Amino acid sequence: MRIAVFCSGRGTNFLNLLLDYEKGNMPGAEFVVMVADSKYAQALNVAREFDVPTLVIPRSAYHSNQDGYERRLLEVLEPHNPELIVLAGFQRVLGKVFLDAYPNKVINIHPALLPSFPGHMVWQKEVDYGVKLAGATVHYVDYGVDSGPIIIQGAVPVLDTDTADELSERILRVEHWILPKAVSLIVAGRVELEGRKVKIKNIKPKDLEDSQFQAMVWPPLDA
Amino acid sequence: MRIAVFCSGRGTNFLNLLLDYEKGNMPGAEFVVMVADSKYAQALNVAREFDVPTLVIPRSAYHSNQDGYERRLLEVLEPHNPELIVLAGFQRVLGKVFLDAYPNKVINIHPALLPSFPGHMVWQKEVDYGVKLAGATVHYVDYGVDSGPIIIQGAVPVLDTDTADELSERILRVEHWILPKAVSLIVAGRVELEGRKVKIKNIKPKDLEDSQFQAMVWPPLDA
Repeated sequence: MRIAVFCSGRGTNFLNLLLDYEKGNMPGAEFVVMVADSKYAQALNVAREFDVPTLVIPRSAYHSNQDGYERRLLEVLEPHNPELIVLAGFQRVLGKVFLDAYPNKVINIHPALLPSFPGHMVWQKEVDYGVKLAGATVHYVDYGVDSGPIIIQGAVPVLDTDTADELSERILRVEHWILPKAVSLIVAGRVELEGRKVKIKNIKPKDLEDSQFQAMVWPPLDA
Repeated sequence: MRIAVFCSGRGTNFLNLLLDYEKGNMPGAEFVVMVADSKYAQALNVAREFDVPTLVIPRSAYHSNQDGYERRLLEVLEPHNPELIVLAGFQRVLGKVFLDAYPNKVINIHPALLPSFPGHMVWQKEVDYGVKLAGATVHYVDYGVDSGPIIIQGAVPVLDTDTADELSERILRVEHWILPKAVSLIVAGRVELEGRKVKIKNIKPKDLEDSQFQAMVWPPLDA
C-alpha cells in the first residue's frame, strides 16, 4: 500500500511510523512521498534520512486560495499514486476539493479524546478545563474539523502539575503508539468503515481483551 | 461528614456507595438522607434496606417552577444539615437557588468522558458517534450542564458490537469504581478546588502511578 505522509513540524509521528515499518511491523506498507507545507518543517530531515521523496508546497503561496492550494496538492501527489494519506501533524485543513479525490483514504491524528477538544491549542485547553484523562485519536478525515469516523483512541492521565507542554509530550507517547497501529491495520486490509463506525475485521470481539485494538491506554494502570 | 444522596432511578450508584462504606473504605462518612424525585424510584428500596432516611420530592408538583422546586429541596434538606450532596443518577437539573446554598458541596456522576457528551441520552450518542473510548466523570456541579470542575474520570473501551444498553452497563462498572473513590477522598478532606482544577492533597505526583487517583481505566489493559 502506497502511503503519503503530510507534515508541518518536527515529524516525530512520521519518524515513528518509519521506525515501526523498519521493525517489520507494517508488512505491505510503502512510504512513497512526504509532503510539507513549509521548507522549514523539520520533518523534511526525517524524510531525507530514510530516503523518502519530499514535496514542499508552501501554503503561503496560496494565501486565501484554499481550493487552489488543494488542487496544487492533488497535482503534485498524482504521480506518486498514494493509496493512503496520513496527516501527521499537518497544520492545514484539507477541504472538499482534496478529500473528494481520496475518499476515505485520508486519516489524521489529533491530540485529544475526540469529540472533546477539536481544533487548535488542544493541550492548553485540556489543562485549563482540568480534564483528568486526555489522549489522542486517529480518525478518517471528513469535511468537518476533527469530526470524522474514529479508528483508534488512546488515553493518558493528566497530572495536577501538568503544563500544556508536559501534557503534549505525554500525549505524544500515545500518538506514537496508536498511529502505527492504525496504519498497519489499514495496510493489512482489516479496517472497515460502516457509516461513521470503524470496525476491525478478523476479530470476534467476545470480550474486552479484543478492545485493545481500538481503545488503548498508556501507561497501563492497575485496577 | 454528613452526606445526602439524590437519586431518580435504580440507585445502583447509591447502593455501591453504601457497600463501599460498609467495607470500611469511607471512614468518617455518614449517609444522613436520600432524596428521590419520584416515589417510584427503586433507590428508595436501597435506602430502606440500609436504614437511610428518605425524602420524596416529586418534581411534578413544581411543574414549570424550578426555583420553587429548589427552595422546597432546601427546606426539607436543612434539618439533615448535609455537608456533601451526591447526585447519583438524579434526573433533575439543579440551578442557582439550590447550588448557592451549598457552594462546592454538590457533586455529580456523568456517564461520559466530559467535556464529550454532556446532557441526556449519552450512551446512544456515544455509540452513534463511534467513539472507541467512553467512560464516566465525577465533577462538582456548577450552573452549566455537566460543566463543573472534574474530580475523577474513568475510561472504558467501546466494542464494535455495543448497543447503547451494553455500553451503559460497562460504563456503570467504572461509575461504581470512581464515585466511591471521589466521595472517600472528599470525606478524607483530600480534595482541593483551585479555580476549576481539582487537586488531591497529600500526594506528590512525581510519576504516573499517582495519576491513578484521578484517571482510572477499567478494565486495566496491557500495553
